[in-house]
Amino acid sequence: MVKQRISLAGGTSRGLVLDLIRTMGPVSRVELAETTGLTQATMSTVVRQLLGEGLVIETGRGESTGGKPPVMLDVNPDARFAVGVQLGLESLTYVVINLSGAIVGRTRTTGIGSSEPTEMVQRLAAEVHRTLAGLGIEKASVVGVGVVAPGPLDVGRGMILHSPHLTAWLNVPIRSMLADAVGLPVILDNDATAAAIGDFWSGKLDDAVAHATVYMGTGIGAGVLIDGIVFRGASSNAGELGQIVVTGPDGESTYLEEVADPGAVVRRARSTGDANRLGLPGEDDFGDFRMIALAAARGDEGATALIEDSAEHLASGVLSLANLFDLDSVSLAGPAFAVAGPTYVSVISRRLEADFFVRTQHGIRVRLSTDVADAAAVGGAALVLQTELAPRTMGLSPVG
Amino acid sequence: MVKQRISLAGGTSRGLVLDLIRTMGPVSRVELAETTGLTQATMSTVVRQLLGEGLVIETGRGESTGGKPPVMLDVNPDARFAVGVQLGLESLTYVVINLSGAIVGRTRTTGIGSSEPTEMVQRLAAEVHRTLAGLGIEKASVVGVGVVAPGPLDVGRGMILHSPHLTAWLNVPIRSMLADAVGLPVILDNDATAAAIGDFWSGKLDDAVAHATVYMGTGIGAGVLIDGIVFRGASSNAGELGQIVVTGPDGESTYLEEVADPGAVVRRARSTGDANRLGLPGEDDFGDFRMIALAAARGDEGATALIEDSAEHLASGVLSLANLFDLDSVSLAGPAFAVAGPTYVSVISRRLEADFFVRTQHGIRVRLSTDVADAAAVGGAALVLQTELAPRTMGLSPVG
Repeated sequence: MVKQRISLAGGTSRGLVLDLIRTMGPVSRVELAETTGLTQATMSTVVRQLLGEGLVIETGRGESTGGKPPVMLDVNPDARFAVGVQLGLESLTYVVINLSGAIVGRTRTTGIGSSEPTEMVQRLAAEVHRTLAGLGIEKASVVGVGVVAPGPLDVGRGMILHSPHLTAWLNVPIRSMLADAVGLPVILDNDATAAAIGDFWSGKLDDAVAHATVYMGTGIGAGVLIDGIVFRGASSNAGELGQIVVTGPDGESTYLEEVADPGAVVRRARSTGDANRLGLPGEDDFGDFRMIALAAARGDEGATALIEDSAEHLASGVLSLANLFDLDSVSLAGPAFAVAGPTYVSVISRRLEADFFVRTQHGIRVRLSTDVADAAAVGGAALVLQTELAPRTMGLSPVG
Repeated sequence: MVKQRISLAGGTSRGLVLDLIRTMGPVSRVELAETTGLTQATMSTVVRQLLGEGLVIETGRGESTGGKPPVMLDVNPDARFAVGVQLGLESLTYVVINLSGAIVGRTRTTGIGSSEPTEMVQRLAAEVHRTLAGLGIEKASVVGVGVVAPGPLDVGRGMILHSPHLTAWLNVPIRSMLADAVGLPVILDNDATAAAIGDFWSGKLDDAVAHATVYMGTGIGAGVLIDGIVFRGASSNAGELGQIVVTGPDGESTYLEEVADPGAVVRRARSTGDANRLGLPGEDDFGDFRMIALAAARGDEGATALIEDSAEHLASGVLSLANLFDLDSVSLAGPAFAVAGPTYVSVISRRLEADFFVRTQHGIRVRLSTDVADAAAVGGAALVLQTELAPRTMGLSPVG
């Protein structure tokens, strides 16, 4: 747990206390004061505020540690909700989570395809409203909408800067257009960053200090967290793991994406003849990749070799990432890991155990994210909860 | 400048104000209050404290902005000093800097060689005392000693964990031994981290948000700063740039160090025959590398090709680093850049301009550190000043 490692640097006391109640709850005021170093008087004030807002509830008495048994606090899971939307060419995924980070609803609709932004934003807003209505959730209890897309983004202006597929969407102020259409605060962020926050919000990262969520959809990215705070770099475009320079199949230098992502696996399947043998339709790379992963799961040797080759390349990339960020925790998220995740976890774990530079100092836990395929959508929703309710920023943040 | 980007997250108001006076000075209390968002009353209290400690002085009246001309503040450069020591097999470098970060003294003595730690610590302490005495600096005005060594380190316990050369020093509590012997606070840190802090303290990083100092001595490391705060990762061993996986000369995967560091250049010189042609003595790699760099500086084609090959490999590594950390500033420091620095700067700049992933969003400034060869020693001293006088930490830091 986070005990003895917490101060208020980079956050508000209200947000920090809410975060701790969420991860430690049920928990007493005394335990919270001890963990934060805040005085009991300050803690009482903060807790009174959180009770008043309905975010926290008293859940009864805990065990006595000598005197009167303390009143225990926990989050009120259904006090607030957040919506996460994963933008995709083929499909849109909507996820609604509550204050505990539990998924209370999920919908998938037709993807962006060739829709224009203006028309699409109207559809997104309508689908958000329909999803919430279907779950019987009042808009007043919704904190906001987190939209996730692959990078690079202009997070400040809420725009996609570059995408091979979403060309009509580039440099369009999606965030503000959607905020107007849906009537709720909207955040636009990177899929890998969102997935990392989703992992953190799920409470599964325990006492990880330096964590990375490696996200693989059609491309590869990473979201890095230090004590649960997103590492953003100069322009919120950090973690472009697919863009590190590695060795290609012919010994030439190339980018990691070119040798490890689903498209690379499919290209290799074509060159080895496995594509024909497995009868891949060849319509979209991601669909073909999924069939290769399924064949590997059934024990097909050629398919297994293809997945393992991708995993070895990704493992080299994760090793570089771990040596640069001095990681102690890695999780894998994104649709590419939906079927083949366990193979990637084992190849990456083995590589880090053998070669991580400071392995004598500490290990690195490698695991799959909880909701591996929809991790970015879940994370988009978690990012809204974190931003609106328990903000954490790194470094010297702007004033006013 | 840092204006409008500063808050107190991750630091103390006293340290932040001192930092701003150092970088902005001469500066008025009003300007400081505006920059920090602190009230003028708080600012007066903090400034009074700094004046009382002798760290800051009033330097006269500034220009009037309507009313009475304001009293200007600046750091009192000779109020405090710090010592930086760069541990090396061949030589030890001692640097003394004042509160403005200016070098007031520098000594070089025989390296560690095969000395035992206990004997060596006594010599280090004696040489620190002799250096200070030679400069007429009272020990009372010395904030501490910053010792730098290549990683990996156990910064918490002040020990070197691994080194091909300093085997007798591994797992020895150097920091506490030296603190006892010298009678001053001692910090042990990574050479690249120290060099990065040196760059920051020199005030040359301007408004860089995400900066990396790439340090090349016998190996390669990087110190990453976010708003002047060191990115430390899980165990203060972040930035091991030499340990990222890249393409070797035969197309196999290897570590960046194996293809880009001085030893790699010398090995290549042997295989191309340039070593014989240039008459390299072949006694120590770093000496041979220096001769190759000097030959390249004289215009020797073979030597130029060898340096450029190393620079191209390093540029791939820096590109990966920039794409992962979303850097907007890079500097090169360390003895390997003493002669060939300008070649490395130009090759790396060109590569980043062509291939940095978010280059449409922002550029990356590439430059040589001010005191390139002794940057780690200077940085060790700066790290002491920062730690003792203006502490900045990232993330949620320990309480008490």
